[in-house]
Amino acid sequence: MEVILAEKYGFCFGVKRAIKITEKIAQTNPNTLTLGPLIHNPLEISRLEKNFGVKVQENINNLGQSKSVIIRTHGITKQNLETLKQKGVSITDATCPFVTKPQKIVEEMSNNGYDIIIFGDENHPEVRSVMSYSIKTPIVIANIESLKEIGKIPKKIAIVSQTTKQIEKFAEIVQYLVTNSLEVRVFNTICNATFENQEATRNLSQKADIMVIVGGKSSANTKQLFYIAQTHCPDSYLVENENDIQPSWFESKNICGISAGASTPNWVIKNVEEKIKNLKYP
Amino acid sequence: MEVILAEKYGFCFGVKRAIKITEKIAQTNPNTLTLGPLIHNPLEISRLEKNFGVKVQENINNLGQSKSVIIRTHGITKQNLETLKQKGVSITDATCPFVTKPQKIVEEMSNNGYDIIIFGDENHPEVRSVMSYSIKTPIVIANIESLKEIGKIPKKIAIVSQTTKQIEKFAEIVQYLVTNSLEVRVFNTICNATFENQEATRNLSQKADIMVIVGGKSSANTKQLFYIAQTHCPDSYLVENENDIQPSWFESKNICGISAGASTPNWVIKNVEEKIKNLKYP
Repeated sequence: MEVILAEKYGFCFGVKRAIKITEKIAQTNPNTLTLGPLIHNPLEISRLEKNFGVKVQENINNLGQSKSVIIRTHGITKQNLETLKQKGVSITDATCPFVTKPQKIVEEMSNNGYDIIIFGDENHPEVRSVMSYSIKTPIVIANIESLKEIGKIPKKIAIVSQTTKQIEKFAEIVQYLVTNSLEVRVFNTICNATFENQEATRNLSQKADIMVIVGGKSSANTKQLFYIAQTHCPDSYLVENENDIQPSWFESKNICGISAGASTPNWVIKNVEEKIKNLKYP
Repeated sequence: MEVILAEKYGFCFGVKRAIKITEKIAQTNPNTLTLGPLIHNPLEISRLEKNFGVKVQENINNLGQSKSVIIRTHGITKQNLETLKQKGVSITDATCPFVTKPQKIVEEMSNNGYDIIIFGDENHPEVRSVMSYSIKTPIVIANIESLKEIGKIPKKIAIVSQTTKQIEKFAEIVQYLVTNSLEVRVFNTICNATFENQEATRNLSQKADIMVIVGGKSSANTKQLFYIAQTHCPDSYLVENENDIQPSWFESKNICGISAGASTPNWVIKNVEEKIKNLKYP
């Protein structure tokens, strides 16, 4: 069986940047914590805790003795940022610049009287952070079906996307809005790395007969890669590390494609690749 | 054979308004002329000349003795408007407000650094008038294919549509832009009358087995009605008046649908309807 890595995969600019920032801050601030996981990869989070003592705290009212707080790649809400500032802790912003952008757009458009629509998962921390910059509660839609259910579409709309969404689905939603509204301001806030990783996964999954996507199970961009792979290659699997791999998946397969989410460390991908290459078939 | 008129058809607000303005001005200014035909209907243009002495002049440098010029429903270019002003003639603006709107949008967006895209026919006077309000020469596309041929899509785009285009095609173009640009400002400038006439024609042509569309052959909105009718009812015909009708079209037909463009006078539609109702079949 041939094993092929996607042309683009793994750590994106925003994740690399956040890890670098975190390692640096943690070296001089022993009690550093992140508000929620820095990235959606439990293995990398464990590494940061083990090697740098960086802890994860979900509750903003439970910072304990820590005087150094890092904002995760997905950003936090405007309200939580205010709360943090009032606590007088040292704040380091590791929000991915591709997330800061829709936050700013939503704030500006909302101030200018546009109704905000966000294409994304309203339970995802990135979307919650972006939502918080709108004056009125924005409309958050996970797909075109939920848009069609909202009834009356506002007349002046600004729309942004969660950075990890598929551009085709975003465009499909915009198409619907245009036919039902007078003015639509469309900001393509899908990040380049997402777009490139998706393209590469799409291409590879069209020739592979098994696809293995490596990444955290709560990582939105990893899940998108998995959905794309599955569309073209029904035998697609999402694994967090090499231990999730089952040899039976690979029986009578010729080409195994591997891709990985933007928050998946290289060493995890390497371990998965090695495990697959060394599989003993029955 | 049953003869059914579309639920909405014929004269729109902008056309009615322009005719009213023209008749009023012509009553006090015997030498009134319009720069290009007021509307795209030669029968109505003849009526205005015959009853009110309103002449059509295509060439702005050939106004002769006239001191009263009316701007057609489709608008004129910004440059021509300047030229007219310098000539010191009395100017009456009968530009449809639905055309003034994209003119203003294009001017504002262009001033704000957006590249302008116009969905429309670049030889149509309306589009030429709207184009002239952009600082840089705008991109004019007649369909999605010509958009795909332009190569690199600008990063910050504002797009408007010729008022008479089909909303579905406009939305399809926007969908393509969104996937290839960072910011797209979409202004749905398709006029309501167009939209309603198109909807009514679509509905009627789905049950008719012959469709007759009445209107000027250079009228963009009339041609759109014809294309829509043809999609659902292959036996569709575009006629300028009752003389264009051929009895053989109606042989063994059960339902004849009639619709008419926004510049088609009611009396022309009535004549067509009567002619069809009184047809003698072989």
